[in-house]
Amino acid sequence: MASGQAYSGSRLDRAAQFRDDTDKLAALAGHEHARTYVVGGELIVLKSHDGHLDPLFLRTEVRTLGPLHETVFLGVLEGVPRFGMWLDPAAVEALKARDDLKLVDLRAIAVQGEVDAEHVPPLAEAKAILGWHARHRFCPNCGAGTRATQGGWRRDCPVCKVQHFPRTDPVVIMLPISGDRCVLGRSPRFPPTMWSCLAGFAEPGETIEEAVRREVAEEVGIACSRVAYFASQPWPFPSSLMIGCLAQAVSEDIVIDESEIEEARWFDRDELKLMLAREHPQRLGTPPPIAIAHHIIRAFVEHGCDVLQC
Amino acid sequence: MASGQAYSGSRLDRAAQFRDDTDKLAALAGHEHARTYVVGGELIVLKSHDGHLDPLFLRTEVRTLGPLHETVFLGVLEGVPRFGMWLDPAAVEALKARDDLKLVDLRAIAVQGEVDAEHVPPLAEAKAILGWHARHRFCPNCGAGTRATQGGWRRDCPVCKVQHFPRTDPVVIMLPISGDRCVLGRSPRFPPTMWSCLAGFAEPGETIEEAVRREVAEEVGIACSRVAYFASQPWPFPSSLMIGCLAQAVSEDIVIDESEIEEARWFDRDELKLMLAREHPQRLGTPPPIAIAHHIIRAFVEHGCDVLQC
Repeated sequence: MASGQAYSGSRLDRAAQFRDDTDKLAALAGHEHARTYVVGGELIVLKSHDGHLDPLFLRTEVRTLGPLHETVFLGVLEGVPRFGMWLDPAAVEALKARDDLKLVDLRAIAVQGEVDAEHVPPLAEAKAILGWHARHRFCPNCGAGTRATQGGWRRDCPVCKVQHFPRTDPVVIMLPISGDRCVLGRSPRFPPTMWSCLAGFAEPGETIEEAVRREVAEEVGIACSRVAYFASQPWPFPSSLMIGCLAQAVSEDIVIDESEIEEARWFDRDELKLMLAREHPQRLGTPPPIAIAHHIIRAFVEHGCDVLQC
Repeated sequence: MASGQAYSGSRLDRAAQFRDDTDKLAALAGHEHARTYVVGGELIVLKSHDGHLDPLFLRTEVRTLGPLHETVFLGVLEGVPRFGMWLDPAAVEALKARDDLKLVDLRAIAVQGEVDAEHVPPLAEAKAILGWHARHRFCPNCGAGTRATQGGWRRDCPVCKVQHFPRTDPVVIMLPISGDRCVLGRSPRFPPTMWSCLAGFAEPGETIEEAVRREVAEEVGIACSRVAYFASQPWPFPSSLMIGCLAQAVSEDIVIDESEIEEARWFDRDELKLMLAREHPQRLGTPPPIAIAHHIIRAFVEHGCDVLQC
């Protein structure tokens, strides 16, 4: 299900058993074939030669890029370790002048396919966890500076001794459906012809299903009954887990929350089919196949209400 | 599905549209029927009179309890607002001497049913978000002290201006199954006769399904193929979202991770049936119905492999 979406399907073994083994981590870092992905803010640093883009850096190459911050042990592929490193966003600017490098947003990498698809999931892993380090240098419990440990999978506070783990934010993303119709919305951030599923963060003290019903009610004023889980997707912008669902709408009238949604309306399956095929007369479209929203909408186009019976 | 589990099924409307309306929040706080749940560390403060336990405090009653910290607007029930307040754990100690109060762990409240079931979900909401405030008084980005805003649904940094939202940690909890058998494990923290589903935090850059496969492989060395979502449960200890799944095991030999698991073994459905009924000859048992693990195991006992076909 949702097999075409980006950022999942990693071939790396995360080998978590090595994370608390300092000697092993040092040996992995010194492995002659060890390779490193480099993340600088929202950008991924790629080697560029003869039109080919390569996201894997040797240790010696990494040192030429600028002052590096956190390193994370991402895992092992066929016995060879892979790491992620965070480059100061200011240093990234300086790299834009280098002919042998290209700086690309991870969304563009996933959409354009210029980098071998094998790299997209570990790049997502690297971006999510390195971004967490960048935003969590201080202890939220006492304000002291924290230190990365466990191969980059934990930060410890030297003062209050609290251990901090990477944060992943569960987000519900859903399609309210009724018969042959469903509700799509447009965020003010979207291109003017793009329509997508509704979405929002799950809150403390609610189930996935309750979060779906609450978000649909808040954003478009539609009541939902049954909720069916569809699939999930890591979304490293900055650190979400998208939990895709379909929901049985039990009301019709749309009242939008203007602080979140610019427009929302009902679409029937025939219109959605044109949108997925990029043949809509007004050029309306959906998110591309890298996004789980595309696959939720496609499942409804192909199976109709049956998507709720499973 | 999983209808007997605790902490979900809240009757409150969270009324998020009021969170950024300071005047409205003040009016709600001053509402003559406004009621407040009081959380002190791991304990819930309850009023006790004539053997009846009541978790709802009037404003005037709240003031007698000690120095209060954060207040959170939890939502509205039939037009009446409910709040949650955090009491300093040191102040909670002093309350233990008061005859008109009782301090009870939220797990015990859910298991023992001494408090009306209606209160359990908003207590979970209150404990999860108030615990987040207690552990997040400082900005992880710059170390400065942060301030609660938005009715307690955000903390803002006055120095670097970053906005912080409540943290909810997605946890996968799953039952690897094969034919009429499944794998249960025992954490060193469990009572000696209790066996349960395996569980672990979802990590950055993986789907729910990938997290399930990784955790099962790490904890018991079993490979899994198909993963089916079952249901979810908020678990405010301190702030998890339990995502319940079943998984098709495709290997047999168990190798446990001794840092996480004390024992793990295969159980057949007949043995599980005895455990659920509390009739096991060695008194082995499962978690109680407040926990999603109970319902995952029960679904497998009742439906066998069919739980994976949905």
